[in-house]
Amino acid sequence: MSQFWSEGVTELHPYVPGEQPQGERLLKLNTNESPYGPSPAIAAALHNVNVADLRLYPDPASRKLSAALAEYHSVPVDSVFVGNGSDEVLGFVFRAFFKGKGPLCFPDISYSFYPVWAQLFEIETHTLPVTKDYRIELSAIPKELKIVIFPNPNAPTAIALGLGELEAFVKARPDTLVVVDEAYVDYGAESAVTLLGTYTNVLVVRTMSKSRGLAGLRVGYALGAPDLIEGLVRVKDSFNSYPLDALAQLAALVSIEDESYFQATLSKVVASRARLTRGLESLGFEVLPSTANFVLARNPAKSGGEWQASLRSQGIIVRHFNKPRLEDWIRITVGTDAEVDRLLDALASCS
Amino acid sequence: MSQFWSEGVTELHPYVPGEQPQGERLLKLNTNESPYGPSPAIAAALHNVNVADLRLYPDPASRKLSAALAEYHSVPVDSVFVGNGSDEVLGFVFRAFFKGKGPLCFPDISYSFYPVWAQLFEIETHTLPVTKDYRIELSAIPKELKIVIFPNPNAPTAIALGLGELEAFVKARPDTLVVVDEAYVDYGAESAVTLLGTYTNVLVVRTMSKSRGLAGLRVGYALGAPDLIEGLVRVKDSFNSYPLDALAQLAALVSIEDESYFQATLSKVVASRARLTRGLESLGFEVLPSTANFVLARNPAKSGGEWQASLRSQGIIVRHFNKPRLEDWIRITVGTDAEVDRLLDALASCS
Repeated sequence: MSQFWSEGVTELHPYVPGEQPQGERLLKLNTNESPYGPSPAIAAALHNVNVADLRLYPDPASRKLSAALAEYHSVPVDSVFVGNGSDEVLGFVFRAFFKGKGPLCFPDISYSFYPVWAQLFEIETHTLPVTKDYRIELSAIPKELKIVIFPNPNAPTAIALGLGELEAFVKARPDTLVVVDEAYVDYGAESAVTLLGTYTNVLVVRTMSKSRGLAGLRVGYALGAPDLIEGLVRVKDSFNSYPLDALAQLAALVSIEDESYFQATLSKVVASRARLTRGLESLGFEVLPSTANFVLARNPAKSGGEWQASLRSQGIIVRHFNKPRLEDWIRITVGTDAEVDRLLDALASCS
Repeated sequence: MSQFWSEGVTELHPYVPGEQPQGERLLKLNTNESPYGPSPAIAAALHNVNVADLRLYPDPASRKLSAALAEYHSVPVDSVFVGNGSDEVLGFVFRAFFKGKGPLCFPDISYSFYPVWAQLFEIETHTLPVTKDYRIELSAIPKELKIVIFPNPNAPTAIALGLGELEAFVKARPDTLVVVDEAYVDYGAESAVTLLGTYTNVLVVRTMSKSRGLAGLRVGYALGAPDLIEGLVRVKDSFNSYPLDALAQLAALVSIEDESYFQATLSKVVASRARLTRGLESLGFEVLPSTANFVLARNPAKSGGEWQASLRSQGIIVRHFNKPRLEDWIRITVGTDAEVDRLLDALASCS
């Protein structure tokens, strides 16, 4: 540490992202990237970029991309906020809506960046234990808590919450703000976007890093009532006017326009997820019901850390969380069918 | 506003960036972009990108780019921090080093984002009036102030502070952290990077948006003692693990490797700045001595706002700051010689 660090910087426990090995030939099933690239139409769009135009600042409000997202999701354009990955969007959410609003409620098993943002922005937290079968039970949230965030489907469990249960909660608690982090929703869960026309206490956060195969370009967004979006804009414009570069804005726009490629890759991942689940079960693994592009699995023959190490020694990376209630489990990203088979063979060989 | 906004969000006064007109044919001399594009070698590098690889997260630490910057500036690699434009880097600086450290000192005429970050992170401020001839006088900074930030050359004055004066200050005040925002230093000012080997209370912030013609890709960085860099990393990893996308990392690296193009474009801008200054003076303008890629100029025939409006009606955008001590002035970005001539003609026609 340094005499020049601000208060709290020493105590920060930064988020640790999944490993991004450089140069090694490993099968990466650890960070829930799509096994398929983004829309191939992006290649042509990048080829047509006049590099000299990069001298100009990008549109600070990403207006073309926002308009395309508004049309795609059938919401007004002032219900869209775009940022540098959903992590940045979520960081702004914490500053804009959670700071000073009492304890923030999120599940005990959930995205491990939530407690980190809470610490950065000095926000009290309240963890809601997921049930014995790893489900989020909204009705168990104490009434005095007015701010709630969770992923749907949840990560790393991959279990989805039904839209009916969510709607009942936001309807019954109009003074509670519910932020639904839909990073993995495209793989089969019900989106809360359909609630936005009726309820102003829901904010939906999305990423293009998973289902759209664009993790390399860092594009995320939020959808919600215009006054919520305005709060995010105020924070963003007080932090970084131009968070999204010109090439990321362009590629994201092309991705939105290529619906057929998007749907085709989603279908392939969903089919491979079924193959992976069946294969794991036949090897004696318990697999939580997944509507995401990953599964959480355990097999009492080894601990989660041991399974992870065994796979690593065979050139395959999966994620293990050394945390309460998660020690036994490994999180495996759904790859192509060939990658699924390679993983299953590796598990069989070390079972 | 919304019942869901956090305390302080209503009171934020977000930074207002210079206009980025979309689709209009205007001569943009308002946001200090380079009139030349970035290294043309970037085009080939982008053509060679395998778009399918964008499915993977970028290197969260931008290691290749950091190594290239370390070599370029002759500093150790753990003295380099890379972020999503120097605005994001500066935002992290405010959180990592200024919050809770007493009033932050910056010049009254300076980058207008400083008070915005101070407000976002709840930091007290102390403004140091620049002298009558618009110079920063470090010796006038009260001894009890332990955190200082200013651009060198200053913006929007374009006036540089000498390295001798800066070194005397950091040497005499080892318990004061001095952050030097060198966005425009490549155009002729003396960089504080040469002090980094001797003093650990200096942090230098740079951008690739100006002299490297890469505003469209949002790349900034900081150089300083490893424990300062570690503070920035801790804050960044508590906010957004991957702030710099894969294409921005690639293009920035190519730019660093193309020194001859960089130097050639710098020389052209410096020559055009002399042409612009002479031309303005011959039209009766007072021009502050510039070591940046812009000049601050006034001519009592009209107010700054009037000059700006006259130019706008002729299809040229310059920047005017409607703030104390700046009302009379306009800030003009140095363009190509042809653009300089067009601007001078337009000013002559409305004089």
